[in-house]
Amino acid sequence: DVVDGSALRRGKKTANRIWGNKASVLVGDYLFSKAFQIMVADRDYKVLENLSATSKSLAQGEVMQLSLTNNLDINEKKYFKVIEDKTAKLFASSAVVAGIINKTTKNNLKKLHDFGNYIGIAFQLLDDALDYELSDKKIGKKTGDDFKEGKVTLPILLALKESNPKEKLFWIRVIEKLDQRKNDFKKAQQILLKYNALNNTKKIAEEYSKKAEILLKSFPKNIYNEALVELTKFVSARDN
Amino acid sequence: DVVDGSALRRGKKTANRIWGNKASVLVGDYLFSKAFQIMVADRDYKVLENLSATSKSLAQGEVMQLSLTNNLDINEKKYFKVIEDKTAKLFASSAVVAGIINKTTKNNLKKLHDFGNYIGIAFQLLDDALDYELSDKKIGKKTGDDFKEGKVTLPILLALKESNPKEKLFWIRVIEKLDQRKNDFKKAQQILLKYNALNNTKKIAEEYSKKAEILLKSFPKNIYNEALVELTKFVSARDN
Repeated sequence: DVVDGSALRRGKKTANRIWGNKASVLVGDYLFSKAFQIMVADRDYKVLENLSATSKSLAQGEVMQLSLTNNLDINEKKYFKVIEDKTAKLFASSAVVAGIINKTTKNNLKKLHDFGNYIGIAFQLLDDALDYELSDKKIGKKTGDDFKEGKVTLPILLALKESNPKEKLFWIRVIEKLDQRKNDFKKAQQILLKYNALNNTKKIAEEYSKKAEILLKSFPKNIYNEALVELTKFVSARDN
Repeated sequence: DVVDGSALRRGKKTANRIWGNKASVLVGDYLFSKAFQIMVADRDYKVLENLSATSKSLAQGEVMQLSLTNNLDINEKKYFKVIEDKTAKLFASSAVVAGIINKTTKNNLKKLHDFGNYIGIAFQLLDDALDYELSDKKIGKKTGDDFKEGKVTLPILLALKESNPKEKLFWIRVIEKLDQRKNDFKKAQQILLKYNALNNTKKIAEEYSKKAEILLKSFPKNIYNEALVELTKFVSARDN
């Protein structure tokens, strides 16, 4: 939230908004270090290796995203690589670590990885769609944060493919040159609506959720499995 | 440097100055994660436990320092606790980890810890004195950073003890209320000079260096030991 300058998260004021950037960054460092210490105390190398690689991916994805911001010359493949690194690997790792602790088979670990990965992609796709929602009240974060930064997300990429020359010039001005005027966000929402870009992004999110749900079928049916099925539904249907 | 808003470090422009806060924080996260991965790859639990505890201390010290900023009601004991946490533990850990890898005795590990701790305290004391240096050109960082933030460091604490009522009101205004006017930094330097606070801080730094040097005498004399003796001299005599 410090990095994005976000003021709201899940409907509540962000830490940076309440205590300032400095305290938020330092307490974040403290929590990271404390988590590191707890992980080490458990003395499981496989888990440690997984978590340290994941931590590196997340940071790498955030840096990659930075270099893709204000740049319309990226393709969907690059976009998916960034959201896998910055978001989906955290979900994948959470699933895999549970498998490692339970000493499951290599084949199951692969399935758990894919399950988390699909859920993470669905989560991020919906997040990127929600940033262009029409009503600010409905969702628990401020809309327009990605737009303000000129972040290139899937809704933009989908609309860009269909855009006419005049609309293309609009995207170049607001996203690449970051020359944004009053009502530009509204205009962006209108173009996204015109080409059905938000609904199509949500549909792709649902496809990933579905893939995750199917993977769950190969694990024993119990209350945990049921809860995870609920989770797959939630990530692509949540409204904040 | 992001957290302090510093523009110079060892005479060179800081990363936040060149690339902005956002890229600096994210690349910092990446480096932290990458370092974590390298540490885990080595598979030495004793080292990992030491490094994770150290990392936590550094973050904790920075948070503690934040809560002591703009507050003259702190004593030297608290100040020393903060600089041990935020700085000296990194030096202590560097020395101890070398000992762990070389499977040295518990007694030697204790000595290595104290050696690093003393060096770190000396380093930070000098750092805090240098922030009030008279000439900006001589040292490789901008002077007055601590003052601008209202950070309470040893030079201030030493001068505060001697200050007359008028000077005390000055400290309350500039440090606690952070109500700083033109020439206030110069005035602060003059009060510190009047009570010899910078020289006394440097003297205490030298005492800690001396303690570190004495500890080195109980280790074999060789080129490494000689280099460390040089280091103890450098930390309390450096001018940037």
